[in-house]
Amino acid sequence: MKQKHLVGLFAALSLALGAGIATATGDEPIQPVKPPVGINQAKAELGKKLYFEPRLSKSGFISCNSCHNLARGGTDNIPSSIGDRWQQGPIKAPTVLNSSLNFVQFWDGRAADLKEQAGGPIANPMEMASSHTLAIEVLSSIPGYVSEFRQVFGKNAIDIDQVTDAIAEFERTLVTPNSRFDQWLLGSANAITAEEKAGYDLFKNSGCTACHNGEAVGGNSFQRMGLVEPYKTDNPAEGRFAVTGDDAERFNFKVPTLRNVELTYPYFHDGAANTLPEAVDTMGRIQLGKKFTARENAQIVAFLKTLTGERPVIVLPQLPPSADKTPRPNPFN
Amino acid sequence: MKQKHLVGLFAALSLALGAGIATATGDEPIQPVKPPVGINQAKAELGKKLYFEPRLSKSGFISCNSCHNLARGGTDNIPSSIGDRWQQGPIKAPTVLNSSLNFVQFWDGRAADLKEQAGGPIANPMEMASSHTLAIEVLSSIPGYVSEFRQVFGKNAIDIDQVTDAIAEFERTLVTPNSRFDQWLLGSANAITAEEKAGYDLFKNSGCTACHNGEAVGGNSFQRMGLVEPYKTDNPAEGRFAVTGDDAERFNFKVPTLRNVELTYPYFHDGAANTLPEAVDTMGRIQLGKKFTARENAQIVAFLKTLTGERPVIVLPQLPPSADKTPRPNPFN
Repeated sequence: MKQKHLVGLFAALSLALGAGIATATGDEPIQPVKPPVGINQAKAELGKKLYFEPRLSKSGFISCNSCHNLARGGTDNIPSSIGDRWQQGPIKAPTVLNSSLNFVQFWDGRAADLKEQAGGPIANPMEMASSHTLAIEVLSSIPGYVSEFRQVFGKNAIDIDQVTDAIAEFERTLVTPNSRFDQWLLGSANAITAEEKAGYDLFKNSGCTACHNGEAVGGNSFQRMGLVEPYKTDNPAEGRFAVTGDDAERFNFKVPTLRNVELTYPYFHDGAANTLPEAVDTMGRIQLGKKFTARENAQIVAFLKTLTGERPVIVLPQLPPSADKTPRPNPFN
Repeated sequence: MKQKHLVGLFAALSLALGAGIATATGDEPIQPVKPPVGINQAKAELGKKLYFEPRLSKSGFISCNSCHNLARGGTDNIPSSIGDRWQQGPIKAPTVLNSSLNFVQFWDGRAADLKEQAGGPIANPMEMASSHTLAIEVLSSIPGYVSEFRQVFGKNAIDIDQVTDAIAEFERTLVTPNSRFDQWLLGSANAITAEEKAGYDLFKNSGCTACHNGEAVGGNSFQRMGLVEPYKTDNPAEGRFAVTGDDAERFNFKVPTLRNVELTYPYFHDGAANTLPEAVDTMGRIQLGKKFTARENAQIVAFLKTLTGERPVIVLPQLPPSADKTPRPNPFN
């Protein structure tokens, strides 16, 4: 009888726990970040070299990692990036962390995927200011690259398609699972504090999850910046309109991921919000028509900081040296 | 009888081998690079963060690693470095690899050691363009740094002395032992080819080792650039004269290390020589009054490439995020 009770208790308990876990993973608008699967390690390793490769720029000084810095939150933490000859970029560099989860790439979605994205900055005169032709000429002159590309792709010649493919493969490894919030989603009730949980409830109940949802807590839709109240900015970017020419899409931007948002300041496409409290306040006002109290703001910020995940361990690549015939960089002309 | 012969043979052989090893390690003008000893690991780990820390610059974009890139040969591989607002630096960035072996730091020796060196670029308006005051204000506002400095130094406040001490400790780990040439020095007769050995003999017999000797194959004396024939350059650097004001020291520069010279192109203080054959040719002509044949040049170059050592494995640090109160970088004003 006593034993029967105990069995019953355990059954009820595990049912409740099971239900709890089911709720967290199944019914929440946010899903845990999954570790990357099916990575071609050799291709990703080559991609890492290319990601850190300043010789893909005209100056020999700027690499992908210059503006999407993996020692930080996958971004440069300045309002707009620094390009060739210190040109001021038009927009805040989005984080590369979890960028494989975005439904399209760039703030205006002009690239379908990471592979298409990777070719852009190399040839953009405001950014790395090289050309695909020059980049391939440089790589093809370097014996260390020639053999590694051949090993990975099994072809006789390096082309830009292989370059962007490898970079994208590396970028697919840059996901950040196991944040405290994901631990909570997966059933560890104590992984977040009561204050952080209150922040999450506010975040859901205020409507933030209408746009910031899914595995990346964003990154899966375009939305107008300034839904309830116009957003005031000096930044001339017009978002999705620049791609489609459709007036209805003016100021529509890809919703940024909130994963690791603690690390990706300053915020918004113009980098105008320096801090999370400021960003939360502005979002509440212009997107939701809400004025959060100081207490509410602090709770939401506390929740947002639980979205900081485990960053991948990056061993700095050892780039192969140029050969005598390698075209030299051109930083000052 | 047979056994006695064998013993005798082994004795003679080991005597010969012993003599060979003694010659290589004892009497050669170049000594093997020793692995670093006595490193304070916690201090070096903090120093690594600071080495990769762009917030030590006014722009928030430039770190030590920008110009002394550890994904490459500890340098930026351009003739003169890019500083704040893309200013052109006055001189080729020397490699940070094995820089702990230099008897003084900078081309003109104006810093006694790595610790004194590390403070220079942070506050140099041509380079990182911050100030020691601002750098300390930034670091002191970042909780992750406050706790790590306290743990390493046991003091209540961060100061520039701790910053440069930690960076120098990290830099002391950046030595590159076990090059093929060092393996040969230590007795592995087959570690270098006959061609490379011929190059080394030429290097010694031509007089190169008068200046390029010791553990770093350089880095232990000032010498005039253009001993036999004046060196023609547009670069206005005057070397040691800038420090001492002594006319006799005009154009005297610290002899650079030749360790990893395959990776540290372009060569000389003005970065004017793009390739090793060119550098060897110029050095022979202006320092030794010698014209190496194409064959001799190729042999010396082959020898120089045996000086590429094992670079340390660098796990990219994860820099702590700024706090709301952290002074923001100022890249464009």
